[in-house]
Amino acid sequence: LLSEEAYGGNPPNFVVMLMDDLGWGDLGCFGEPGRETPQLDRMAREGVLVPAMYASAPLCSPSRAALLTGRLPVRNGFYSDNDLGRNAYTPQDIVGGIADEETLLSELLQQAGYVSAVVGKWHLGHQEKFLPLQHGFDSYFGSPNCHFGPYDDVTTPNIAVFRDNKMVGRYYEKEFDFPGHVSNYTRLLTEEATSFIRARAADAKPFFLFWTPDSTHAPTYADVQYVGKSGRGRYGSAVQDLDAGVGAILDELDRNGLSNNTLVVFSSDNGAALVSKTQGGSNGPLLCGKQTTFEGGMRVPGIFWWPGTIPAGTTTDQVWTHMDFLPTFLELAGVALPQNLTLDGLPLSNTLLHPELHISRSVFLYRGNLLMAVRDGPYKLHLWTWATPPHLLEIDDDFCPGQRQPNVTTYNQVNHTDNPILYDVVADPAERYQISNTSSVYKTVVPQLLALVEQHVNNLQLAEPQLNWCDDAVMHWAPPGCEELGRCLTPPPSAPHLCYWDH
Amino acid sequence: LLSEEAYGGNPPNFVVMLMDDLGWGDLGCFGEPGRETPQLDRMAREGVLVPAMYASAPLCSPSRAALLTGRLPVRNGFYSDNDLGRNAYTPQDIVGGIADEETLLSELLQQAGYVSAVVGKWHLGHQEKFLPLQHGFDSYFGSPNCHFGPYDDVTTPNIAVFRDNKMVGRYYEKEFDFPGHVSNYTRLLTEEATSFIRARAADAKPFFLFWTPDSTHAPTYADVQYVGKSGRGRYGSAVQDLDAGVGAILDELDRNGLSNNTLVVFSSDNGAALVSKTQGGSNGPLLCGKQTTFEGGMRVPGIFWWPGTIPAGTTTDQVWTHMDFLPTFLELAGVALPQNLTLDGLPLSNTLLHPELHISRSVFLYRGNLLMAVRDGPYKLHLWTWATPPHLLEIDDDFCPGQRQPNVTTYNQVNHTDNPILYDVVADPAERYQISNTSSVYKTVVPQLLALVEQHVNNLQLAEPQLNWCDDAVMHWAPPGCEELGRCLTPPPSAPHLCYWDH
Ligand SMILES: [Ca+2]
Ligand SMILES: [Ca+2]
Repeated sequence: LLSEEAYGGNPPNFVVMLMDDLGWGDLGCFGEPGRETPQLDRMAREGVLVPAMYASAPLCSPSRAALLTGRLPVRNGFYSDNDLGRNAYTPQDIVGGIADEETLLSELLQQAGYVSAVVGKWHLGHQEKFLPLQHGFDSYFGSPNCHFGPYDDVTTPNIAVFRDNKMVGRYYEKEFDFPGHVSNYTRLLTEEATSFIRARAADAKPFFLFWTPDSTHAPTYADVQYVGKSGRGRYGSAVQDLDAGVGAILDELDRNGLSNNTLVVFSSDNGAALVSKTQGGSNGPLLCGKQTTFEGGMRVPGIFWWPGTIPAGTTTDQVWTHMDFLPTFLELAGVALPQNLTLDGLPLSNTLLHPELHISRSVFLYRGNLLMAVRDGPYKLHLWTWATPPHLLEIDDDFCPGQRQPNVTTYNQVNHTDNPILYDVVADPAERYQISNTSSVYKTVVPQLLALVEQHVNNLQLAEPQLNWCDDAVMHWAPPGCEELGRCLTPPPSAPHLCYWDH
Repeated sequence: LLSEEAYGGNPPNFVVMLMDDLGWGDLGCFGEPGRETPQLDRMAREGVLVPAMYASAPLCSPSRAALLTGRLPVRNGFYSDNDLGRNAYTPQDIVGGIADEETLLSELLQQAGYVSAVVGKWHLGHQEKFLPLQHGFDSYFGSPNCHFGPYDDVTTPNIAVFRDNKMVGRYYEKEFDFPGHVSNYTRLLTEEATSFIRARAADAKPFFLFWTPDSTHAPTYADVQYVGKSGRGRYGSAVQDLDAGVGAILDELDRNGLSNNTLVVFSSDNGAALVSKTQGGSNGPLLCGKQTTFEGGMRVPGIFWWPGTIPAGTTTDQVWTHMDFLPTFLELAGVALPQNLTLDGLPLSNTLLHPELHISRSVFLYRGNLLMAVRDGPYKLHLWTWATPPHLLEIDDDFCPGQRQPNVTTYNQVNHTDNPILYDVVADPAERYQISNTSSVYKTVVPQLLALVEQHVNNLQLAEPQLNWCDDAVMHWAPPGCEELGRCLTPPPSAPHLCYWDH
């Protein structure tokens, strides 16, 4: 049995470090010229680097829902069909969230005796029924939403921070103030993570830690000790702060004798938000960024770490998606998958333990309910393209700043299904050099990829969309816990309406 | 004395591995996703990575002349003033070459008792007086020119390959055939390098090896064992072939007990030639490529290796240029610089031995006789811009494929001197986000940079340009050695004319 070969029969622990809007090009070990991530570079030296790790959506909520369910957003409900191919997420007026029918990694591990925690951003719905403790996690510290603000608590409430099912404060208020983009919040999340690890070392229970700091999402913030310490400004300071957190967590595993039985993976929920310009990250050579299905939108850093079990200092050319974590972890834990659970991820433990192994697979890249592209082998086929819509370009928001390719970085949704655009993203990760549609490669590969697409579409059972309805009444006016704090606000009357997703 | 501190009194050996058109983004250790350079990645793990290494020109000949003289092309004659700001080099009809008045690194080391060799492409002039043995080198194997061809030996002769001062064959003829872009030529150059090292181990003389294979310059070629082995096609195979050569040279130093007394540096003469598309290399996130003064044209890979002397596995943020090699090597060798020799390079040994040290410096980026830009600290100021001229775009040759920035990647020479374009290339190495000319940073920094420019220009003594005149009669019709081979061709009558440099 694979799992016993790997860890001698003790179920391994899992730590998923999922960053927010951190780009493929932001780490030293991925080529960032300033090399400001010594701990992550150390993690790569001691672990396995994954240059072909794909998020499952080009923005936060659907990406995170896919990671925890092992299923595409169209299959787990984290999309909208109010319009064609729109990037929907869970702002604080969203009505929906993760459905009870969905089976999360945390639930499967809980059934197998694991203790699980979310530390950081959740983003799978903020109403009580959607919170982590209702979905297999044993503890929670962080916010269910993005840390936008500050708001006035009159027309819009400030975002709540939760411990378990109760609000313990609000962003930009006294507990979680962010004066001048300086905050100890990443350090709080790191300390929460390390104390969770110590508790598991004490109770000897297997665990799943989902560490999801949000400091590289706009508006970025960092601990005071990193202010002015990066060549990359505020964003770089946030990365340094996170890098230190990664080091602290790895050190805590070492200190507690857990590193030889813990698989740690580092990644990001989507590519860098290039609209943030110098306040955002880098996707290195990749095309465009967050919100797009070009490589810069969905290809993200990937590092696995498990000293003594997976080979140190190696690189795998296995194509991974976040949706593979669920079946891979279950395989390593020796936990059977439920019958009738349709997954988009694959169990890939073998490729981690033996990096010379590869498993062929397709990756389907969606923007909302629209299948935009497919990757298979070295090839990527764009069926639809859409970069930045004109109304955003007008206000100087650009998902692809400085990058322009006719008929590819299109300002509107363009249907290429009759003549899809083909790239070899191993030879050309920047998606710069189209393979001519008169070439023999094109004529051979495109029909094969279109057959894979047809098979995928035919077998796809769309979930009820969770991101169609918005309502100001569901905002964080009076979440559980507000009464103890004396911080309840009065919600407006419920007025559900279709959410408007503009791109 | 620094040099004694470094190597205990024995003059150190120097190996410069200078690639041809290899880009900043082409090595695993610089972020290439396929990680196909295990030997270079090993060299970086054992040495010092230099993410800010600048070539001294965006194309071959002037870049190489600057490296060997420690002086800018405008100062050493490797430019043309037939037109403003053109990229001139040494094709086989060039009349000029490296002037006798220039003092080369090889000459200074020869005077200090070093034995020096060029193995590979020379490109400092192909007439006999310009060849390496007339300029301080003790041996030479390779071609003085680019390996273009095959030619018909009637209207144009095939390029000669030399041993010392004599032709020993021609490219694309029996000795140096390249059928289907497959050739053992890189291996020949590697074997030549390793046998030079063994000879120096035997005679115990200090040495300078200038290893300059050209297989990543179009038309690329590789040894048969790498054909089909790279995810990056023919270009990737050439990189794998070179990577193996690097490994063989480092191993030879180890085997002969020389690695603790040899400083090895790996770099490239200019950025990747993006006009070659999938047959060319990658500049990673950097803007544009060869022929331009954007980062992708002149920022190149840099790795120093000297086990036991310079710290293993570190990265320096010191800004280097190839022109620094001359004074740095002399400093390490304890050789005094000649009086009255004006250099553009700086001695930077201290920053290698102690990576926490930094030396402030300016880098002046020229296209031909035109100062295009200056880098100082994190800043880069563009005084002129010119990307790809329209006549090349028309034939689908593009120095900046997929990259377009209004007023920056300009199709013509644009003079920005009155309102220069400012980037922070530490925060923004892709030169994507201009610093607004209304910002306080701009208002503070630009006058300082303009003062540096003024000082530089005022102190600059232009050399007589060597690259103005072309003549078909000087081509490789009948180089020395041709009679022994029975391979002399008849040159046409001399007809000197001004060379035409179109961009
Ligand atoms: Ca995100
Ligand atoms: Ca070159």
